[in-house]
Amino acid sequence: MTQSSGQDRRFLRALLVLAITACATLPAQAQSDPLPSWNDGANKRAIIDFVNRVTKEEGPDFVAIPERIATFDNDGTLWSEQPIYFQFAFAIDRVKALAPSHPEWKDQQPFKAVLEGDAKTLMASGEKGLAEIIITTHTGITTEEFTQTVLNWLITARHPRFKRFYTELVFQPMLELLAYLRQNGFKTFIVSGGSVEFMRAFAEKIYGIPPEQVVGTSFVTKYQLGASGVPLLQREPKIEFVDDGPGKPVAIQKFIGRRPIFSFGNSDGDQQMLQWTAAGNRMKLMGLVHHTDAEREWAYDRESHIGNLNKALDEAISHKWVVVDMKRDWKVVYPFQK
Amino acid sequence: MTQSSGQDRRFLRALLVLAITACATLPAQAQSDPLPSWNDGANKRAIIDFVNRVTKEEGPDFVAIPERIATFDNDGTLWSEQPIYFQFAFAIDRVKALAPSHPEWKDQQPFKAVLEGDAKTLMASGEKGLAEIIITTHTGITTEEFTQTVLNWLITARHPRFKRFYTELVFQPMLELLAYLRQNGFKTFIVSGGSVEFMRAFAEKIYGIPPEQVVGTSFVTKYQLGASGVPLLQREPKIEFVDDGPGKPVAIQKFIGRRPIFSFGNSDGDQQMLQWTAAGNRMKLMGLVHHTDAEREWAYDRESHIGNLNKALDEAISHKWVVVDMKRDWKVVYPFQK
Repeated sequence: MTQSSGQDRRFLRALLVLAITACATLPAQAQSDPLPSWNDGANKRAIIDFVNRVTKEEGPDFVAIPERIATFDNDGTLWSEQPIYFQFAFAIDRVKALAPSHPEWKDQQPFKAVLEGDAKTLMASGEKGLAEIIITTHTGITTEEFTQTVLNWLITARHPRFKRFYTELVFQPMLELLAYLRQNGFKTFIVSGGSVEFMRAFAEKIYGIPPEQVVGTSFVTKYQLGASGVPLLQREPKIEFVDDGPGKPVAIQKFIGRRPIFSFGNSDGDQQMLQWTAAGNRMKLMGLVHHTDAEREWAYDRESHIGNLNKALDEAISHKWVVVDMKRDWKVVYPFQK
Repeated sequence: MTQSSGQDRRFLRALLVLAITACATLPAQAQSDPLPSWNDGANKRAIIDFVNRVTKEEGPDFVAIPERIATFDNDGTLWSEQPIYFQFAFAIDRVKALAPSHPEWKDQQPFKAVLEGDAKTLMASGEKGLAEIIITTHTGITTEEFTQTVLNWLITARHPRFKRFYTELVFQPMLELLAYLRQNGFKTFIVSGGSVEFMRAFAEKIYGIPPEQVVGTSFVTKYQLGASGVPLLQREPKIEFVDDGPGKPVAIQKFIGRRPIFSFGNSDGDQQMLQWTAAGNRMKLMGLVHHTDAEREWAYDRESHIGNLNKALDEAISHKWVVVDMKRDWKVVYPFQK
């Protein structure tokens, strides 16, 4: 038998206490810098100050954990959206993949334009044409088939500018922000104009956001018993709900049922979500990602055909919401730039 | 300085390991009897066996925590639904409360029948009449006003038979089941034909199910800027989605985006939810509450006008789903009977 000193014993006791304490306080554990890819400045300070205040028990701004709801737009807020929405790139690739079974598309717009790479005619087909492409490529199959199609695309398709998988074009500072909020008891949701099933295919793996916390635009779905009696959910060629603009607070109420205390977007389509968050009677933070970095990502706002940011920018400035200047505030944009 | 033996040191080290292990496995900690209000028998054993199998890491039926989705019907499954759906009792009380502002109702059906307590004429008004009462009492106000109305009703109205608050008529064995599943890493959801905002008003407090995990029938809601510029969500007099029958698997996909591995209902309106759960490719459990206890609660099934249980009962029997016999399986029905 070896002997051990009281000092040893005290050390072990201290370790034990530490283990128990760490266990009890794990989610609130402080990190040296919770947002390492954010440059120091007013925006980073505002976010950290907000989190400190709403999590400080007995403080005047304390918000109980179940009420810590954070909502994020996806396109342009959590990942890039240029030169076209990534979901539309998926739709175009689907048209090409499905073309052999649709010989009629060779003479039928807007499919003809897609197959011939004729962007001008495609854009001229307007919203109706674009909607037709989305509906044709997103419906007429079961929910499980659709998810598999998206997953297959995500591991093969590459972004034209960066030659990277689309899921590599997520914003590193926003990944850190999502993790930081969750470490502090927040439940993080996506509330986006993108198709909900498209986003769910990767949101859990890429953002740590499970399917039940992804809210988006949806298609009518029908329950059917298949030929062998196996139940199926069939995606019908009809848009059910557009989760954009005033649809966002409506969707927040429908899917979440609580008002967020933290919301982030990047375009006029997010304005009503931020207004709804701002009108809450507790401490809250509203933020916009302003795309100001043509070199590392893109620079666009008031005149852009995608992610147009105009009225929401005015409202953000006048109400002193957080407006992230991508070029100034972010040390890196994408994880691969770390 | 005192001296301590190697034995002491080993003891402290063991404690340290224990503390760390306890920390890591807390949610799976065993209880002596996780379902004390359930009588021993095949159904209780089936539930506990199911939970043991899906939570046993490295076992053949293990299901990862994020995939442990459990869905429950509400009326007749988590609380009683006789002699009329509790939500309809709320609607009737609302008609009475609103009558002074609607003098025309004195001569207008189906409101006249409600005000005169004329159940026969009310029932004769059929689905159209009942829908009119629901829509009139559930819409035309903001979401926040509606929630407040429900909360006020819940703390004043009493059930005609038991003279108890409606929220006292929840099933004690099902409260234990919800808690048991959550302790084992399940996320519990309500998927019910009841109005989602009605259920959300009490589901968190009574069932421990937060608003974002309550799925139900919904009305169209509109985002508006009120007179003072404050945003409002106004409930429109139009049903948006009926969460019943084939609507339940559709709603599960829409709101949860994952197939449950555990589903419980009590009527034919739950049949498709159970079918959808049964068709999953992992270990799963489907259950029905069979109301067999006229003394402590009610006894009804195939011929009932509320909570009709006929086709789903046949399917449950032929597929050996769990069919809870309330009289035989439950030691108590309501918490106040404990």
